[in-house]
Amino acid sequence: MAQLDDLDRAILRLLKEDARLTISEIAEKLGRPESTIHFRIKKLQEKNVIERYTIILGEEFRPKSLGVLYLQARTPVIEDFLEKYIAHIVKTLAMLPNVLMVARSGLDGIIALIGGESWDRVEGFVRETIEVLPGLERVELFPVDGFEKGAGITGFLVDV
Amino acid sequence: MAQLDDLDRAILRLLKEDARLTISEIAEKLGRPESTIHFRIKKLQEKNVIERYTIILGEEFRPKSLGVLYLQARTPVIEDFLEKYIAHIVKTLAMLPNVLMVARSGLDGIIALIGGESWDRVEGFVRETIEVLPGLERVELFPVDGFEKGAGITGFLVDV
Repeated sequence: MAQLDDLDRAILRLLKEDARLTISEIAEKLGRPESTIHFRIKKLQEKNVIERYTIILGEEFRPKSLGVLYLQARTPVIEDFLEKYIAHIVKTLAMLPNVLMVARSGLDGIIALIGGESWDRVEGFVRETIEVLPGLERVELFPVDGFEKGAGITGFLVDV
Repeated sequence: MAQLDDLDRAILRLLKEDARLTISEIAEKLGRPESTIHFRIKKLQEKNVIERYTIILGEEFRPKSLGVLYLQARTPVIEDFLEKYIAHIVKTLAMLPNVLMVARSGLDGIIALIGGESWDRVEGFVRETIEVLPGLERVELFPVDGFEKGAGITGFLVDV
């Protein structure tokens, strides 16, 4: 486990806010020499504390409405089929641009984040594309409204 | 609405993968002059298509277990109380480091992403901190297991 000290954390917090900050800007903000900041960032990258740098897309390119979808499959007579069925749905969902995130949830479930231009679109997608799938025990859609924390999530996830 | 053409999208896709790419690296990858790439990125920033640049933290700093939590409050006798109660829980959850994301869900609900060192920890948090809250009608916790899409989400959300 890479040990982080206060300076490492301060650097990471600044880069999380704005990864384009230069070494000298960070050095000035934190009152430390540029050589120190340079060395620390190099180490943070080498140790994979910073895995990668990315961009967050603006409001205009994010879906206006968002919902968390939970699916649970009915346990079939042939157990082996469940695994294949879940894997198939997960892969299919992952290919759709309005599916921002999708993961398995336990042995028989799937959890996904669905975006759309409006709540009607999100609900329509679930009704027309998901609820028609055979073999589902449970389909639940929870709206995601005002974010208190993690608001940038859609700007990070959205495809271009 | 900012109109994006194929070149804009190609630039955005490259920067999503690695926002440290230089203008000349992008120019070479896309077979376009550096001046064109420079101009396009400037425009993408000005038009807030690129809202900001950030870092994704590595595996080691991400929670090992993850769950989506849905809470629904019981509608109280005094309606005004519901709004204040939900707002209070949302704000309190947002302050906890293991709560990676929290948002309102409809009028009477809250949806959150909870991280922990193990699934026991995530469940323990919900049992000891959430289920004891008065006035809840429903508490559901869905595990988030193997990601098929959106795996970087925790590396984006996690606090340092």
